[in-house]
Amino acid sequence: MKILSVNAGSSSLKFTLIELPSQEELISGLFEKIGIGNSFYTIKVNGEKLKREVDLKDHSVAVKYLIEELINNKVVDSLEDIDGVGHRIVHGADKYSQSVLLNEEIIKDIESFNELAPLHNPANLVGVRAFMENMPNTPMVGVFDTAFHQTMKEEEFIYPLPYEWYAKYGVRKYGFHGTSHRFINKTISEYLKKDNLKVISCHIGNGASLAAIDGGKVVDTSMGFTPTPGVMMGTRSGDIDVSIIPYIMNKENKTIDEVMNDINKKSGLLGISGVSSDARDIELAISEGNENAKLAFNMFSQKVANYIAMYNNILGGADVICFTAGIGEKGPDFRAEILKRVASLGIKVDEQINKDTFGKFGLISTNDSRIPVYVVPTNEELMIAQDTYDLIN
Amino acid sequence: MKILSVNAGSSSLKFTLIELPSQEELISGLFEKIGIGNSFYTIKVNGEKLKREVDLKDHSVAVKYLIEELINNKVVDSLEDIDGVGHRIVHGADKYSQSVLLNEEIIKDIESFNELAPLHNPANLVGVRAFMENMPNTPMVGVFDTAFHQTMKEEEFIYPLPYEWYAKYGVRKYGFHGTSHRFINKTISEYLKKDNLKVISCHIGNGASLAAIDGGKVVDTSMGFTPTPGVMMGTRSGDIDVSIIPYIMNKENKTIDEVMNDINKKSGLLGISGVSSDARDIELAISEGNENAKLAFNMFSQKVANYIAMYNNILGGADVICFTAGIGEKGPDFRAEILKRVASLGIKVDEQINKDTFGKFGLISTNDSRIPVYVVPTNEELMIAQDTYDLIN
Repeated sequence: MKILSVNAGSSSLKFTLIELPSQEELISGLFEKIGIGNSFYTIKVNGEKLKREVDLKDHSVAVKYLIEELINNKVVDSLEDIDGVGHRIVHGADKYSQSVLLNEEIIKDIESFNELAPLHNPANLVGVRAFMENMPNTPMVGVFDTAFHQTMKEEEFIYPLPYEWYAKYGVRKYGFHGTSHRFINKTISEYLKKDNLKVISCHIGNGASLAAIDGGKVVDTSMGFTPTPGVMMGTRSGDIDVSIIPYIMNKENKTIDEVMNDINKKSGLLGISGVSSDARDIELAISEGNENAKLAFNMFSQKVANYIAMYNNILGGADVICFTAGIGEKGPDFRAEILKRVASLGIKVDEQINKDTFGKFGLISTNDSRIPVYVVPTNEELMIAQDTYDLIN
Repeated sequence: MKILSVNAGSSSLKFTLIELPSQEELISGLFEKIGIGNSFYTIKVNGEKLKREVDLKDHSVAVKYLIEELINNKVVDSLEDIDGVGHRIVHGADKYSQSVLLNEEIIKDIESFNELAPLHNPANLVGVRAFMENMPNTPMVGVFDTAFHQTMKEEEFIYPLPYEWYAKYGVRKYGFHGTSHRFINKTISEYLKKDNLKVISCHIGNGASLAAIDGGKVVDTSMGFTPTPGVMMGTRSGDIDVSIIPYIMNKENKTIDEVMNDINKKSGLLGISGVSSDARDIELAISEGNENAKLAFNMFSQKVANYIAMYNNILGGADVICFTAGIGEKGPDFRAEILKRVASLGIKVDEQINKDTFGKFGLISTNDSRIPVYVVPTNEELMIAQDTYDLIN
């Protein structure tokens, strides 16, 4: 069965066609600058990469090119060979705790959450509609970033704010990166052949969140009402004192939106290092003696360590810690520093193996580490395809 | 030696006269509604309480009444019997890491931090000036809430925000309740006869903060740039997702100041329970079956537990945990729930002893608890008097 896994942004559309249950990736690609001029797309197929500059006035045009490429590259003979399309949707609010077959009624329902994720959900749904228009007979599935976290208890997901803000406006912790955390939990549980694992999943990329997972259920996660809080990230601050906002608005004569933009786009590794939001640039700057880069590195590592310690307690002692996403998979220096800072939990990293584990699955802790630590490359596309496969079968 | 320990608010003035080194409290009192009409004061002396309604047009008038009471009650023969006055000052910024003898130059310097603590510092200094006016020959000492936390490292006190906000505007973690945390650390270190203790100090009153202290030096603390963040409190939220602020401003058509007021005055135990900010009222409501009160109780306890787990790791394993302030000293139910939620650290509470330890010093953990837990009643007034005594000798 061939399933298309789709992630649509406001001006982009990312796709992977996956054969299931074999999990073979047949073709993947990315359409960029849709509707804003100078648009183009890149495709990876048969070990080759191609790029084409085309006029993409909207997502529907992108989908037409996509279908053309699938047929031209002989990945499929016709549209009918695509058995389903799974769509990443950022926000399912507290309504969707699982992936769902999409129809007009459900799409309208999801639209009602748009103001909870104004940058993402409307774009995700534009993608859904573009595929529906071009493939009216193919089942469409929605896979939500928030769904996996819906197992959190009220005492974890409610903020210590006026209760009516939750009741009236839905202000609560939702959590994000759920599809990735679910993939990590599934992968490590299958690998260790255990169902009731207590997992600390550390998704640490440019965006970063941790989840404490007990027997497949999220107990707590570090992102919240939005993807801003939690650990320090590439350009986002993570947790800060909220009172800084009015102080800076006053000092810099900025609006709330301008300050929020600073917090989301000019903070984190970038804000402290002054160098870059990219962990590789930070490591390079450190090797060149840049002290602010070192400060950013230390702060980042400590904040992840803090959450690991917190979640280890919430779980009553974790069975396993997993690192994934950009830094988690390919940042051995960051991983080593984070793990050094949770040494009190009895965690010991094997320095050489950690260095050698770059973008691949592997145990990076020593045999006498009280909690084993694995690198587990994430694959949200596969998870989306798998959910789609499961729902249409 | 007789030392006056003073805490001046914008319309109040609290004082205690203490004999040192014997630590005997000779007289204490509180002037209220200074400058706003219907003003009065209450005095505790010789086991009696008295209240007088008087016109207090400003703090200087209150100081005149104060001196009169000291002499009328024969606590002192004349002003010359008061050897020094110690003043609580909330904010010493990153300049004052210890208490200091006040003079005009230093007062001006402290005034330059007023915008970091606009509700407190100006009022504290009004108190200082009122005493200087009435007791021009008596040494005055400033004791800062922030001072004890000045040992934090840069990577702990800087926020993951644009670095220039720190450099230009002093946006950093300062921490508060420092005088209390210092008193707790001193008391437990003397009691256990150890200098290099690793202490988790939990000051949990209507305001609440934790400090991780290693050998007398604060490594991290839960309050920040202001006293808003950290654990959940009586009316303050503690840590939340900052992105909630613009969302609520928009939903409720409120200004940033109105939302900050909600976060500081209508959140925490009050916001969730809808009952009260007072832990005793929460416990009563729980016993009557109020579910939101129970939710508030659970949330509050978990958030303190989270910080204990985090600080235990930061300290590389704490030697002792101390509870102090209102709830910490007189909230055995809260203490028991918090400690239940850090059971993974090997902490075990003795339920009966915990119940019986009400407003007094005592060990409340079992003998086989991996970390001993004490209740240590705080005494900021004594600490302020002690610093004053030390500085004038």
